[in-house]
Amino acid sequence: MIEAGDRVLLIGNSRAYYVTAGEGMLSTDLGMIPLSDLIGREGGDQVVTHLGTGFSVRIPRPTDFFVHAKRSGAPMHPKDIGSVIAYTGMNKKDHVLDAGTGSGVAAIFFGSIAASVTTYEQRPEFAKLAEKNLQDAALDNVTVVAADMLTATGTYDVINLDMQITPEHIQHAATLLKPGGYLACYTPFLEHLFLVLDTAKNLFSEVVTHELIEREMTRTDRGTRPSTRVCHTGYITIARR
Amino acid sequence: MIEAGDRVLLIGNSRAYYVTAGEGMLSTDLGMIPLSDLIGREGGDQVVTHLGTGFSVRIPRPTDFFVHAKRSGAPMHPKDIGSVIAYTGMNKKDHVLDAGTGSGVAAIFFGSIAASVTTYEQRPEFAKLAEKNLQDAALDNVTVVAADMLTATGTYDVINLDMQITPEHIQHAATLLKPGGYLACYTPFLEHLFLVLDTAKNLFSEVVTHELIEREMTRTDRGTRPSTRVCHTGYITIARR
Amino acid sequence: MIEAGDRVLLIGNSRAYYVTAGEGMLSTDLGMIPLSDLIGREGGDQVVTHLGTGFSVRIPRPTDFFVHAKRSGAPMHPKDIGSVIAYTGMNKKDHVLDAGTGSGVAAIFFGSIAASVTTYEQRPEFAKLAEKNLQDAALDNVTVVAADMLTATGTYDVINLDMQITPEHIQHAATLLKPGGYLACYTPFLEHLFLVLDTAKNLFSEVVTHELIEREMTRTDRGTRPSTRVCHTGYITIARR
Amino acid sequence: MIEAGDRVLLIGNSRAYYVTAGEGMLSTDLGMIPLSDLIGREGGDQVVTHLGTGFSVRIPRPTDFFVHAKRSGAPMHPKDIGSVIAYTGMNKKDHVLDAGTGSGVAAIFFGSIAASVTTYEQRPEFAKLAEKNLQDAALDNVTVVAADMLTATGTYDVINLDMQITPEHIQHAATLLKPGGYLACYTPFLEHLFLVLDTAKNLFSEVVTHELIEREMTRTDRGTRPSTRVCHTGYITIARR
Repeated sequence: MIEAGDRVLLIGNSRAYYVTAGEGMLSTDLGMIPLSDLIGREGGDQVVTHLGTGFSVRIPRPTDFFVHAKRSGAPMHPKDIGSVIAYTGMNKKDHVLDAGTGSGVAAIFFGSIAASVTTYEQRPEFAKLAEKNLQDAALDNVTVVAADMLTATGTYDVINLDMQITPEHIQHAATLLKPGGYLACYTPFLEHLFLVLDTAKNLFSEVVTHELIEREMTRTDRGTRPSTRVCHTGYITIARR
Repeated sequence: MIEAGDRVLLIGNSRAYYVTAGEGMLSTDLGMIPLSDLIGREGGDQVVTHLGTGFSVRIPRPTDFFVHAKRSGAPMHPKDIGSVIAYTGMNKKDHVLDAGTGSGVAAIFFGSIAASVTTYEQRPEFAKLAEKNLQDAALDNVTVVAADMLTATGTYDVINLDMQITPEHIQHAATLLKPGGYLACYTPFLEHLFLVLDTAKNLFSEVVTHELIEREMTRTDRGTRPSTRVCHTGYITIARR
Repeated sequence: MIEAGDRVLLIGNSRAYYVTAGEGMLSTDLGMIPLSDLIGREGGDQVVTHLGTGFSVRIPRPTDFFVHAKRSGAPMHPKDIGSVIAYTGMNKKDHVLDAGTGSGVAAIFFGSIAASVTTYEQRPEFAKLAEKNLQDAALDNVTVVAADMLTATGTYDVINLDMQITPEHIQHAATLLKPGGYLACYTPFLEHLFLVLDTAKNLFSEVVTHELIEREMTRTDRGTRPSTRVCHTGYITIARR
Repeated sequence: MIEAGDRVLLIGNSRAYYVTAGEGMLSTDLGMIPLSDLIGREGGDQVVTHLGTGFSVRIPRPTDFFVHAKRSGAPMHPKDIGSVIAYTGMNKKDHVLDAGTGSGVAAIFFGSIAASVTTYEQRPEFAKLAEKNLQDAALDNVTVVAADMLTATGTYDVINLDMQITPEHIQHAATLLKPGGYLACYTPFLEHLFLVLDTAKNLFSEVVTHELIEREMTRTDRGTRPSTRVCHTGYITIARR
């Protein structure tokens, strides 16, 4: 049941409006909806504009935050987030350490799966934006720490690094991981990948790097073919403790 | 704390032994370990063979079941399992429907994340094997149903189809999904992809198909390069209700 | 030695000027060059503007025509032209049939290699443009025919089809090829590929289809990585008589 | 017209026999053919075994030598040979320098296109094998030199390096190329690619590196899909003088 302050999507007019229940009014060319109307609703309910057009209420999922969260830079691509989740076997018993947070999009995906996520972000303004995004996602099991992950303590099942990675970060990650836990390192550039591999090979077992090339398929009246959209993001290294 | 009957990995002697706590004896060239020794242990503990060699105790993660579970055929590849999880935003509040179960490997990944998974498998002997694998994974929120998913009822947040998909399966999936929920269809062949797209476009919004080409990077003394390993599995179509 | 009417590139001012020897004047912000100055020159010679800046003379190669020839549509990509050349073993003894000509770019590459090229283009205005481009390339062994290749006669070592291919085109190609000769079919869409394969398998031996995904590597001060440029054009089917 | 000593393929019995006209006897389970029968024949002619089965005569093309030439190691893949030809615009007016020769397969493709090819191979036994293969291919415009290409003199339109490339090789190539000519460097490992790029950027214009990922498409009664065959060979850098 939607409460005041919850982030909600209103689907209609061929688009999705990202609104806050209880705060103000949504104005569209199909009419207005007072957002207090959303309180008490469920996902899938219809609300109606003053001109009589129905909009559908959607409780946002992590995929919606990927689209609608405010960004401080390019977040990890879903294919790579999914790759980290699957290759580490991330699950609801896990305590996850994430760094750098960026806008918090990966932390939203991880937080919606894991028992807890602690996410480190050195740039205070990025950390602040991520906190706002995580609050929007109503995740109370995610903690943003405005610091370098070298200051992290505790033990973790999975550590995800998407930042300028130094050997010290990998060494520190090794001390924080439970036996059998996984480190995932995202490196867009080959030089950083080399550094990660050269450091990790002495500290971890089962070190594997892969790259995912994603191709969209388009199917129209003219025919079906792979599209020519962007196809590279970075290298993912998975290392097990 | 490990109990009798729990599946456990013993790491040593350059490999991983998949054993059952309390049942019999592990014999290796480095000595024997009575598996009753595992009861009461935690992940990371050491147990010692009668010849004095330590083996490390590992509580298996979904990635371990991908390797060690008995197979009835090729399970979905981790890159594709991860893709389904990320592109649907699968999370711990979700009720997931999965079909066909196969050996249950994808259901283990989904069940370790979601609130519940109901997985349909038409071939009784496959369903039976999957139940055994799911029991090994100690997942009590996953139900195997030995039937076609056309018989499924209820409402779901995410539906994953990895089977011979007909238009009827897609139409039925549309009736089972909550608004905003996702259908994921895995099709190894283009002809099946075409059928999925042609049916889904009228029933779903945001229908997207992609293919993930995974390349491993190898780094040895000779140099670093992409490996020449297998690079295709299938097409993943994500459709939103 | 350059003669009046030859197409020439003048390299300077950080770009390449595509000019005609003997015709008029090249005006640049670094000064003017009367193009009669080019007559009698060789590739690599310097010509000097009235302000004293040297420009280098380049005799165009097929790669230059790929960039500078007037286009009636997208020509085959070099990776695909190269694939046709290598997988057919195209060489200077070969008589090649090409269809559809388009702007003639592929015919320029083939004509610069083979003994002769006959290229069919149904659209008269495209055929005319191609003739102009081929004349610019100074290739006297290439004939443009403004007709469907179904009207072609003679025998050929290699046939390249880059057009809306019907079963009749493939059947006709089979009758025109010498034993051991090759048919290459370029199909951007999967549906057309299916038609090509289903027709060719009964008429040819060694039928193979491949797709080339090209990735550029970028190396800057930030690091080295694959670029995210376009990576699909079409499927190439090679079939041997 | 086939002469004594020419290499010929006899096609029959579901395979291709690589024979020498005039030398001995071909024995197959479908009967014997005295190879003196081949003299005076043309491609496409039929010769008949003593048991009455016809075999078809094929004059080998470069693609046949790719399959049948004796190998001293892995030759360049056709996709990469084609890429070098197309991205350099190699044509029948060109003088080409090639190193290292290996078994001479790339030199056969280049020699069948270009005016002349000089190919350098440091290992004498490899150079000897390549000479034999080139003689089989009846190419009298290709010269094998058993030396490092650092000793090469003259001027060339295209230089292809497929060997352990040092900065000195690239610098020497720059001095041998005509203005507007092209250097192609094949590097299987990223570290060698980096060296090539770092040296070439100061000596050449239009330096571009790409990698071709080739995927075969398979179409059977079960359906159509990309195959899972080998998909990486190396990086091709093209640099223009």
